Amino acid sequence: MSDFRTRLAEWLARPIVGNFIVGVIVFNAVILGLETSDRIMASFGPLILMLDTLCLAIFVVEIMLKLVAHGLRFFRSGWNLFDFVIVGIALVPAAQGLSVLRALRILRVLRVVSAVPSLRRVVEGLLTALPGMGSVFLLMSIIFYIGAVMATKLFGDAFPDWFGTIGLSLYTLFQIMTLESWSMGIVRPVLEVFPYAWMFFVPFIMVTTFAVVNLIVGLVVNSMQDAHAEESNAATDAYRDEVLEKLQAIEERLDKRG
Amino acid sequence: MSDFRTRLAEWLARPIVGNFIVGVIVFNAVILGLETSDRIMASFGPLILMLDTLCLAIFVVEIMLKLVAHGLRFFRSGWNLFDFVIVGIALVPAAQGLSVLRALRILRVLRVVSAVPSLRRVVEGLLTALPGMGSVFLLMSIIFYIGAVMATKLFGDAFPDWFGTIGLSLYTLFQIMTLESWSMGIVRPVLEVFPYAWMFFVPFIMVTTFAVVNLIVGLVVNSMQDAHAEESNAATDAYRDEVLEKLQAIEERLDKRG
Amino acid sequence: MSDFRTRLAEWLARPIVGNFIVGVIVFNAVILGLETSDRIMASFGPLILMLDTLCLAIFVVEIMLKLVAHGLRFFRSGWNLFDFVIVGIALVPAAQGLSVLRALRILRVLRVVSAVPSLRRVVEGLLTALPGMGSVFLLMSIIFYIGAVMATKLFGDAFPDWFGTIGLSLYTLFQIMTLESWSMGIVRPVLEVFPYAWMFFVPFIMVTTFAVVNLIVGLVVNSMQDAHAEESNAATDAYRDEVLEKLQAIEERLDKRG
Amino acid sequence: MSDFRTRLAEWLARPIVGNFIVGVIVFNAVILGLETSDRIMASFGPLILMLDTLCLAIFVVEIMLKLVAHGLRFFRSGWNLFDFVIVGIALVPAAQGLSVLRALRILRVLRVVSAVPSLRRVVEGLLTALPGMGSVFLLMSIIFYIGAVMATKLFGDAFPDWFGTIGLSLYTLFQIMTLESWSMGIVRPVLEVFPYAWMFFVPFIMVTTFAVVNLIVGLVVNSMQDAHAEESNAATDAYRDEVLEKLQAIEERLDKRG
Repeated sequence: MSDFRTRLAEWLARPIVGNFIVGVIVFNAVILGLETSDRIMASFGPLILMLDTLCLAIFVVEIMLKLVAHGLRFFRSGWNLFDFVIVGIALVPAAQGLSVLRALRILRVLRVVSAVPSLRRVVEGLLTALPGMGSVFLLMSIIFYIGAVMATKLFGDAFPDWFGTIGLSLYTLFQIMTLESWSMGIVRPVLEVFPYAWMFFVPFIMVTTFAVVNLIVGLVVNSMQDAHAEESNAATDAYRDEVLEKLQAIEERLDKRG
Repeated sequence: MSDFRTRLAEWLARPIVGNFIVGVIVFNAVILGLETSDRIMASFGPLILMLDTLCLAIFVVEIMLKLVAHGLRFFRSGWNLFDFVIVGIALVPAAQGLSVLRALRILRVLRVVSAVPSLRRVVEGLLTALPGMGSVFLLMSIIFYIGAVMATKLFGDAFPDWFGTIGLSLYTLFQIMTLESWSMGIVRPVLEVFPYAWMFFVPFIMVTTFAVVNLIVGLVVNSMQDAHAEESNAATDAYRDEVLEKLQAIEERLDKRG
Repeated sequence: MSDFRTRLAEWLARPIVGNFIVGVIVFNAVILGLETSDRIMASFGPLILMLDTLCLAIFVVEIMLKLVAHGLRFFRSGWNLFDFVIVGIALVPAAQGLSVLRALRILRVLRVVSAVPSLRRVVEGLLTALPGMGSVFLLMSIIFYIGAVMATKLFGDAFPDWFGTIGLSLYTLFQIMTLESWSMGIVRPVLEVFPYAWMFFVPFIMVTTFAVVNLIVGLVVNSMQDAHAEESNAATDAYRDEVLEKLQAIEERLDKRG
Repeated sequence: MSDFRTRLAEWLARPIVGNFIVGVIVFNAVILGLETSDRIMASFGPLILMLDTLCLAIFVVEIMLKLVAHGLRFFRSGWNLFDFVIVGIALVPAAQGLSVLRALRILRVLRVVSAVPSLRRVVEGLLTALPGMGSVFLLMSIIFYIGAVMATKLFGDAFPDWFGTIGLSLYTLFQIMTLESWSMGIVRPVLEVFPYAWMFFVPFIMVTTFAVVNLIVGLVVNSMQDAHAEESNAATDAYRDEVLEKLQAIEERLDKRG
């Protein structure tokens, strides 16, 4: 790596640069919040749009400098990739003007997660919990798919708004799993047409909530074990080493004299 | 066991055969999903029905080969029985054409659980949690039965849709336990006729949610103990054995010289 | 205690007598369930009422025999008192005929809890968890009382159905704590009159759900500690005793020779 | 400290004084509850208002005496500050008569928390759990802010009651996080205008409930560790000390003779 790139990388890693970027992110969050107010936009619209563009420019410059400093190794870090994509999204809608893409610009605020170490650690902690939940998630996906196909076949003709297609059924079953209006809103009307529909919905609720409970129980057990492993080892290991050393010393003394 | 049956059993246990069956199950799941779309059935109906029959035929052949290879020991495994029943269900409706039975054909997709070891282990894990919950389940059944009889007697005449029979009361009480619209939907209308009905419903909610919470707490504690027992033993046992051995050695040396 | 009373107590403690009583309870539960059906009562009313009276008579005789056998020590057991009260309730309405008291007769089925040891243990387990929750319960009662007085004063005039009196406010706040229709049903209508009412309701929801979560966390921790204490002691104590014994033996040998 | 102030502080610390204050608080709570009843106020209004003023006077005298006894060190305790503010609030509305401020007078009942040690410990326990939740709370605030800005931009024009401003969006998203009427009440109507809105709401529900679950898991793990650390040390430390002492003694004896 050239001397210039090394010094640039060092400069970018300084706390003051990081804090400045966090400041710009927070300032940009406020600006993007003000943009939602029609009244403020009517009075200060051009100023706010200019400040927003300025913030974006700072982010683009920062990422470019990081690219210069680190080269392609920049993309090895998941967080850098995350920043790159989020700033990239912000650049696309500026050109097109689609309302959805413009709304996605607020995702830029998520950069604060990658910029503040304590938030970074929380998100990394949440993400490490995900792989252990993979099998239960797969199982729930299978249950949801089976449930959606069955519900579509059984109730699709009578209730097209709720169970007309597999997609609608999946959404309705998700709603039922969250227990939102499952009975008064969905199942009671269905029961009036199909009196035995409860044989589908009640077991579905029991199985999916049981699976969700088991996901949570798994999270608790995993976190406990991690915490337990960290905590207990320090004191216990020291004690165990001392006992074994002392026993060793006694044996040696006996050997010497023997 | 004849030589042919042994070789057949070995061939069936090969990974490639298992993967092929998983592939057929996933393909069949897609086919059964497409069947729910009227538009696709209008264009490709015969093809889809043929592919579905083909998948079913493959399952039937697989189970027959397993029956030949293992004989009646096939039924000793719960998972084999599970496969047998699920494929059997799929054969019945093909003959009759009842819509409910035809909808049950999608249950065939559940075979993926018995075919993929990691899903199998998750389900086995969930099932092992059930027996420990037996007594609390029995207690909740008693509470529900008592609650249903009381609600039917007290509110059945005034609210026949919700509490007209024991069955309806059980369903309504289940809805109340899940807290879905319990107050605005059910209890407030009841309170207008029976001003003291809250003395029945509020304790019912407290008792049943307390029981559910205790079910979950029991699950957490059991899982923790299993995890704890597995984890701690390895390192601790090795250490304990070493200490006891060393003490034994010291005693022996003292005895020799004594 | 006279010889007769001793033999009576032994006879009552026999498994066959206990099983017979459990059988009568279950049979009575079915009878009381059938009583809720108008159709069945129209055909077999007199028979069902007679069987119900028969069951009650058996319970009365059983309790009287227990009273004879154990004297006043009968009342020292909480479960006996429970049986006595429940059968007593069943005797009152038979005389009066009030519909609420008649509905309470189904509580007799709860006797199955005191008659089946495994259910008894579950209930005792649930009850032992209660005292540890006392302080949090008291705290929640205070929060509910304060919340109810405030809500009555602030919203009572505008929404008399929900917050007209402290009692109505307590019920509505309980509904809000269970999150049932709290926003669409209660708070959004209130917000239309009092735009700052969310400053009361949102913190109320946060504080009470946080307290409930802490109740559950306390339950988990207590159950874990109980389970942990039981489990770990067996193996660990044996090992510790062995180590200390061996160390003692080594010291004694050294003393003898010293 | 002067002799008089020391003796005053001792007198204030007496159990009988504390119990008297608790008695006044409970009596005042009842009085404030009676104030909500129009019927009771019509008959006994002046008496009740006088008793309320008397209670308040007792609190003011108590705090003044404490201020005299402890001087400015009084404010070093968070609980004293809490009492001071709560009684202070009660003094303001008496002068102004604003209905909100008058409703806040019931907060005086919270003094019972600072006056009863067991409640004090519960609240302190709940508060110690808060700092560990700081990062997850910050993360959820960011998610809520981003979600509110996006929802306001996307759905604000079509659904001004729910998503018209960032404030309204925050409230609606909080309602959605609690799962109250999220689908039937909010998302289904939105889906009719924006068919892809589920791509915003379903992930929002999953992310926020996952974060809440992780908050609870963190609480369980922290409480467990605290409980574990306290419990295990007593017995284990005694045992470990004994083993090390015995090993030390054996070594010394060997040294003496060696």
